[in-house]
Parts: sequence; structure tokens; C-alpha cells
Amino acid sequence: MSLVDRIRLFRRPDLSTLRPFVIEGQRLGWILPAFAERLAKFPAVFEAGADAVRLKDRFDSYERRSEALAGVVDALAREGGLPKFRNERYPVAKSFYDKPLLGLERSAVPSFGTLAYGVHLNGYVGQGRDMKMWIGRRSRNKATGPLKLDHIVAGGQPIGLSLMENLIKECAEEAAMSADLARQSRPVGFTSYLIQNHEGIRNDVLFCYDIALAEDFTPVNTDGEIEEFYLWPIERVIEVLATTEEFKFNVAMVIIDFLVRHGFVAPEDPTYPEIVLNMRIRDHFLARSEGPSPYPLPQGEGARFL
Amino acid sequence: MSLVDRIRLFRRPDLSTLRPFVIEGQRLGWILPAFAERLAKFPAVFEAGADAVRLKDRFDSYERRSEALAGVVDALAREGGLPKFRNERYPVAKSFYDKPLLGLERSAVPSFGTLAYGVHLNGYVGQGRDMKMWIGRRSRNKATGPLKLDHIVAGGQPIGLSLMENLIKECAEEAAMSADLARQSRPVGFTSYLIQNHEGIRNDVLFCYDIALAEDFTPVNTDGEIEEFYLWPIERVIEVLATTEEFKFNVAMVIIDFLVRHGFVAPEDPTYPEIVLNMRIRDHFLARSEGPSPYPLPQGEGARFL
Repeated sequence: MSLVDRIRLFRRPDLSTLRPFVIEGQRLGWILPAFAERLAKFPAVFEAGADAVRLKDRFDSYERRSEALAGVVDALAREGGLPKFRNERYPVAKSFYDKPLLGLERSAVPSFGTLAYGVHLNGYVGQGRDMKMWIGRRSRNKATGPLKLDHIVAGGQPIGLSLMENLIKECAEEAAMSADLARQSRPVGFTSYLIQNHEGIRNDVLFCYDIALAEDFTPVNTDGEIEEFYLWPIERVIEVLATTEEFKFNVAMVIIDFLVRHGFVAPEDPTYPEIVLNMRIRDHFLARSEGPSPYPLPQGEGARFL
Repeated sequence: MSLVDRIRLFRRPDLSTLRPFVIEGQRLGWILPAFAERLAKFPAVFEAGADAVRLKDRFDSYERRSEALAGVVDALAREGGLPKFRNERYPVAKSFYDKPLLGLERSAVPSFGTLAYGVHLNGYVGQGRDMKMWIGRRSRNKATGPLKLDHIVAGGQPIGLSLMENLIKECAEEAAMSADLARQSRPVGFTSYLIQNHEGIRNDVLFCYDIALAEDFTPVNTDGEIEEFYLWPIERVIEVLATTEEFKFNVAMVIIDFLVRHGFVAPEDPTYPEIVLNMRIRDHFLARSEGPSPYPLPQGEGARFL
């Protein structure tokens, strides 16, 4: 394994094997055929055809759409085969900057393949070869990635909080960082991917932040989501990333982006372009983009609602 | 104008309007139809058809290919309509990491639309809102972008130097920086674009570097390429970038990438994704990439040699 191998794990599935999840004529997600067949058993809510799964237009408000999906998700959960509820709703919209069309139980998001967002914070001490990075070990009780390695702070982006409000909340809960300290985090870009895994379709945008921490700061977990924190030399972070699967899959991508931005991956390495170019995908957000893109959109069957 | 408008200037031309420049069956560049017609007058060197311009296979070594093109470029320069020679050869290869198939006079590179590389250094002082950035004003005698604003140091990547050797050379010539100081530059990624302009087709990859400079360092130009240096508050850099065309076009892109990486562009800005996603294009380098790309390649006529 090497850093580029980590990035190669984020291969996009063939979109023509997925069913677009369509609301009001727009594609909002991607659904696996087996889940589409489960949804076909709710003909009052969906038109589930071979080409797409459409939410019926009579659900014509945020509340009606949210309640329609909540009813289906509850019924499916009773049948089994859905992950444990998180009791937290994620916004479903064409872009991060659009008003959500509905709120969807977080644990069901990968089943519908709708966009999900997170804030990921790289906490580091010192510079250059002497740099160290704070790494958390996720709790054994986490719904996803138990005991995997993580950032000092990271969390999903719920409805109703700004990115910075969410980051401040997560910094307090996960690492006992004051709001003043959390506000020193600086946004440094985003990573994004669309993959198929055991949860369904992960269609995520991770807003990345860096924070330079003082030598004498030590994170303390307060919400039980982190078992333990380590302050690792950056060389150890690189080695563990490159040679093991200990890091949660998407945390690995965000830290590799950090390594590129901080000069720990060299442009002389022939895998450099592949690492840099595959850190984000172009599908996300395009709806809101007003300028014509100089890049081609995905072609073929599955792309017709993009 | 705004930062995203700067990025929107890098629109890729419709590749179907260009002729692939083909050597040994591989597309190495893109040629405008008018220039292809000039090349058609050298039937001993090229097969110039409506679909592509092919260098004849009998030029079967680096030297033979380089001399064949040098002869054509000399003849065209005598006819006029080519820019002044730089007397510096750029490598022509499918990827930065491949052995060049030939060396091509730098001033003719946009006529053939082959890949060109540069090193661009962001020199800054301080952090956060107090940050300042060193900006150079290009000499009135520069072949491209005279009197435009520039980085503290930037230069094209010639054959025969490593990226760091080239950066050290440019740091000495353009800013009187010692080799020890220049080596403190850290690689932070690359930007890339394929555009059509008055020179022809610019098909560039710019390797980006950052250097944090001490308060008491002042750059001194030694090669006559910079008229003047300014140490500007970052807010002024942003304002001039967003509201004028004073910065050289590709320097603007590299500094906007810097602004994203250093937290001066906010993810709350709905143009953020468009800025981040358009900082580099996917065409470059793919030949050397060994993993299948999860992204679609350009489709249609012009893409058939990609």
C-alpha cells in the first residue's frame, strides 16, 4: 500500500448500475437496485421504475416530503436491514447552498445516496519535519468505523447549524476545545467522493479545516466518541496511512490532502498528480454553479439527471 | 469581478475545434486549424490531415524529432507570425514523469499546445488577517505579461533541471534568495489549465510552493525580470485580484489556490466549490496514471487521443 492506493479506494461505481433518486424532476441521490425494489413496495410514496425512483409530486413541502420519507424509513427499519437510527436529520438538497427539499434520518442517507456533509479538523503542532498531528481513536461504540483512527475533531453536518457553529460544537464535545480556540481553525478546501460500500452509496463532501495547536494543549474527549488521543510525529501518520487500514476511510483522504498542502508529498513522486486530482469529484454542487464548467459531465445513462 | 470570475476565465476550448498533435500514435498537444495549415506546407515532416497533425514516424529519436521541429519552427519564424525565440527548449512528453520525445523551442510551445510546466512560489510574511504577501511587477521587457503583477518568484520548467533546482535558480535570479532559504519552500500542490489565447493553446501545469519569509527579508531582483517588489497586506492582494486584471492570468489562479489553502476564501461563499473544483483539470498526467480513474475522460472527437 501507499498513499495513492488509499486514494484509489475511492472509485466511483458505474452510475448506470444505480437508480437516480428524483424529487421534483431533479436527481437528488443514487439508489442501489435492491433498495429500489424495497421502495417499490410503497407505491403511495414513490414511482419506482427501472430508470429512477421518483418521490411523488403530491409531497410538495419540506414537511410533507420529510414525513413521507420518515414513514417509509420507519417501516423499513421494522422489517430490518437498515442501520440503527441516529435520530438526527440530514438536509436533502441539490447543493450545499440550496434550501433543503426535505430532512432525512442520518442512518438512511446512504440508502438514498443523497449528499452528506462533514467538518474535518486537522490539529497539528509545530512545522516541517518536526510537525506532530493529534489523532483520535474512535469509540468502540461508534455506528461507523468503530476503533478506527480519526482526526482530533470531525463530525457530520446537521440541519440548522452553520459550518463554524458545528465545528465549535464538535470541538467542545470531542476535544474540550474552547469556542475561542475552535474559531482559530481555518478552512482549507474540501474533499469529496461518491462510493458504494456496505452502507449503500456514500456521496459526501468534507469541509476541511486546519488548526495549529500549542505544545501545551491536550485534547480531552467529553462525549464518549473518542477512546484515546495520540500526538504522533507526522512521519508516523504517513506510515500508518500508507501501510495499514487503521484510519477511517474518509479521514485518510482528508489527511492526505493535508500532507499535500503542507509539503509532505513531493511533486517528484509520479503518483502526485493522481493523488491531487482524485481528492474531490466534480458532480457535487454543480447545480448551484452559475458559470459553465470547462469540464465534461459524466456521460451515459446514469448521468441524465445530473 | 470576483475571485470566481478570475477562475472562469480558464475556460477550456471545445476540443473538437482543435487538431491533436500526434507523435508515435499518442496525442502530445493541440493545434489550432490555422497553424495546422501552416504545418501542412512541410509534408516531409508532418502528415497534416483534418483529423490530426502527425509527426512522421521516420523521426525516431529525441534528436531527430527535436531537429525536425526546430527546422520547421525556424522556417515559420522567417515567414513571421511566431513570437520571438526564447532560445530555451521545453520537453515534449505525454506526462511530466515520462522521458521527453523531443525538445521544442519555448516560444513555439503554445503553437503545438504541448504541456508546459512552471514553478510558482507564494512568498508571505505573518499569518491570518495580518498576513502580507510579496508581489512582483514584471519587467516591461518580458515576452509575456509585461508590467503584470507576479509572485515573488516564478519560472518555466526547462529540460534538465529538477523542480527544486529550477526553483533555487529562479529564487536567486528573481529575488536574490540564498539556496538555503529557497529550500525552505514547500510544495503545496499544482494548478493546471488548457486555454486558447493570443499565443495559441496554453496547456500548463504550475507546481505551487509556499514560503514563510521573515519580516526583515527583502527580495532584490538580479536578472531584470522584475521592475519592483511590493509587500502587500493580504486584503489588498485579494482586492486587486478580484477587481482588476493587473495580475498575470496564471499567477491569479495560483494565488487564489493559496487563498483557499490559507482560509481567506470561506466555504459559506456559494462560489467556493466552483473556485476549488476549477483550479486544475484532469487531462494532464493521465497517461502515467496506473489506476483506473473514477472520473470520465473528455468525450467526443477531440478526445480520441487522450
